[in-house]
Amino acid sequence: MLPYFKESFGNPSSIHRYGRIATKAMETARKRIASLINASPDEILLTSGGTESNNTAIFGVMRQAKGRRLVTSSVEHDAVLEPCKRLQSDGLDVVYVPVDETGTVRLDRLKSAINKDTALVSIMFANNEVGTIEPIREISQMCRQNGVLFHTDAVQAVGKIPVDVQELGVDLMSISSHKINGPKGVGALYIRRGVRVDPLVLGGGQEEGMRSGTESVANIVGFGRACQVAKEGLDENAANLRAMRDRLIQRTTSEITHVTVNGHKESHLPNNAHFTFLGVNGEDLIIKLDEYEIAASTGSACSVRTQKASHVLMAMGFSHEQITGSLRLTVGYGNTLDDVDKAVDALKKIVPELRSVSPFKAKYGFAG
Amino acid sequence: MLPYFKESFGNPSSIHRYGRIATKAMETARKRIASLINASPDEILLTSGGTESNNTAIFGVMRQAKGRRLVTSSVEHDAVLEPCKRLQSDGLDVVYVPVDETGTVRLDRLKSAINKDTALVSIMFANNEVGTIEPIREISQMCRQNGVLFHTDAVQAVGKIPVDVQELGVDLMSISSHKINGPKGVGALYIRRGVRVDPLVLGGGQEEGMRSGTESVANIVGFGRACQVAKEGLDENAANLRAMRDRLIQRTTSEITHVTVNGHKESHLPNNAHFTFLGVNGEDLIIKLDEYEIAASTGSACSVRTQKASHVLMAMGFSHEQITGSLRLTVGYGNTLDDVDKAVDALKKIVPELRSVSPFKAKYGFAG
Repeated sequence: MLPYFKESFGNPSSIHRYGRIATKAMETARKRIASLINASPDEILLTSGGTESNNTAIFGVMRQAKGRRLVTSSVEHDAVLEPCKRLQSDGLDVVYVPVDETGTVRLDRLKSAINKDTALVSIMFANNEVGTIEPIREISQMCRQNGVLFHTDAVQAVGKIPVDVQELGVDLMSISSHKINGPKGVGALYIRRGVRVDPLVLGGGQEEGMRSGTESVANIVGFGRACQVAKEGLDENAANLRAMRDRLIQRTTSEITHVTVNGHKESHLPNNAHFTFLGVNGEDLIIKLDEYEIAASTGSACSVRTQKASHVLMAMGFSHEQITGSLRLTVGYGNTLDDVDKAVDALKKIVPELRSVSPFKAKYGFAG
Repeated sequence: MLPYFKESFGNPSSIHRYGRIATKAMETARKRIASLINASPDEILLTSGGTESNNTAIFGVMRQAKGRRLVTSSVEHDAVLEPCKRLQSDGLDVVYVPVDETGTVRLDRLKSAINKDTALVSIMFANNEVGTIEPIREISQMCRQNGVLFHTDAVQAVGKIPVDVQELGVDLMSISSHKINGPKGVGALYIRRGVRVDPLVLGGGQEEGMRSGTESVANIVGFGRACQVAKEGLDENAANLRAMRDRLIQRTTSEITHVTVNGHKESHLPNNAHFTFLGVNGEDLIIKLDEYEIAASTGSACSVRTQKASHVLMAMGFSHEQITGSLRLTVGYGNTLDDVDKAVDALKKIVPELRSVSPFKAKYGFAG
């Protein structure tokens, strides 16, 4: 990325040599991004991130579609739910399909939600809180059979598991650079050739008129490189992540009492572990873990400021007490089994400490 | 910027220490951006660039305004004109105020365009092609007197000339990082406290819900630093730019025949020189200048791909021949008087070369 901040600072829209160098770098990045998901470079729309990709897909399809119904799920990221809410307030018909207790979208309910007025189905690839991977191929087939476009927010899945847009048959797919160790502030929307989407941001006509604004060249170059690295190491990385995650779950569940592991047992992201520690407040856990230099989250970092209970866990039927005790731990690039052991050792100290002053102490018979 | 790509890679929305470090860096940047234009940090909305800022201002005000009329000018950047066109096609009433031959908005026509149904006036601070600075204070006062919000696209002006939002009385103002030597892919929209704007991008609620999506932390830090540098050196830089630009104009007009200098004579950006070389094609000039490692543009880099004649020059009443012969040269950070001399020396060779094969050769009596 670094040369594109200094010596190669050109604007890709300029026709002089500095512009051409920037354009070339951007097109190399676009090829790498496309390659990771088996798309063509001309099907990759570069955006400022996963959120803008989701907004572009949803607003962009619904703005020019004949159908007035949009079908989504109750466990989507806010970057899908909030655009849906706006469309609903604008008079469109939005259906939120429920999930089962593992966080898997109920296909029977999805099927009955698709009617003749449906223009778009938007279901996430993998859940950002509980890690459950949705049945994307089945949903894609269902959409095809009904002549409905299918968008998936694949921000959590790409780079962690193999994602092939041709094999899956999705029409639109959102991806994010920083979720695969690239820089923040850049992402992409895969748009299958022939699918019509109205632009969200208008102006100078960059990205074939689909996303105006001077391109964030260095970020795009970094995103491309991150995609290349992710593709090359995909199998090995996934195996490493899975080994670490499995040890995290195995040790935590065997060495700490009153803990459950959430999400789907098999159809699950390799890097994600989502726990409920009964009688503990997840927010307190994060603050304590931070003292051990362990960075955790109760759910989505993006919803921390709202301080509201996780809509994902509510949709999965969790009680308020279960939601309060929930903690997401993810393993990533650069982590080791040692880090996992340190995290478990920290939890083994912190969880009993918090339980010793818990209002649920008597209920579960915690020591204190 | 660099630490925020590596060791301090946190997501500002996370509550752990990595998140807090990122948040702190972002808030320092926001203060620096605000300081450059004499705003409060809470009036600074961080965006992906000037284009998104313009889109947010225009769509965001008009979406929730009672009034259905939007008044703009015929010389705006496409990042303003294209959102206006969409609103027009959605049924809103958009008025394009004409300019005089210097590119200055006609205040009498602006005044008569503002009616009781007008919600917003959007007039650029300084023109990106011809460098003319618009009478922003007068426009601002006119808007205040009529109870109409005033947005200005100040992407070209900020960092080049003093811009004080309090003194000017603007309500919304777009700025861009890469126009003041910061990184590409980040910008800001100044929103005066109390002015209501609907967000363009919805999701996790970053930027107080006004612009969702994980923040481009490193870019924001770089933008903040660029604002700080721009503020510290504003007077000195403007004087340097003006000295270089004046020499460029002085030598070009005295050493090359059949050339005119465009835009307003006094109310003009210090870095911009806009010429018309009669009997020459500006595009050919750029290609030839590129061989001398001089990066020039016929107008806006953003409109190069459309290959259409400059709407700015058309609005100023230029003939097709004058538009064809037009060339924008700007001086910037890092340029010297030597660079200016090299550019003039190159033009002195190239212009007669091109004129010797020009179809207008006989008309002007060019040698060849």
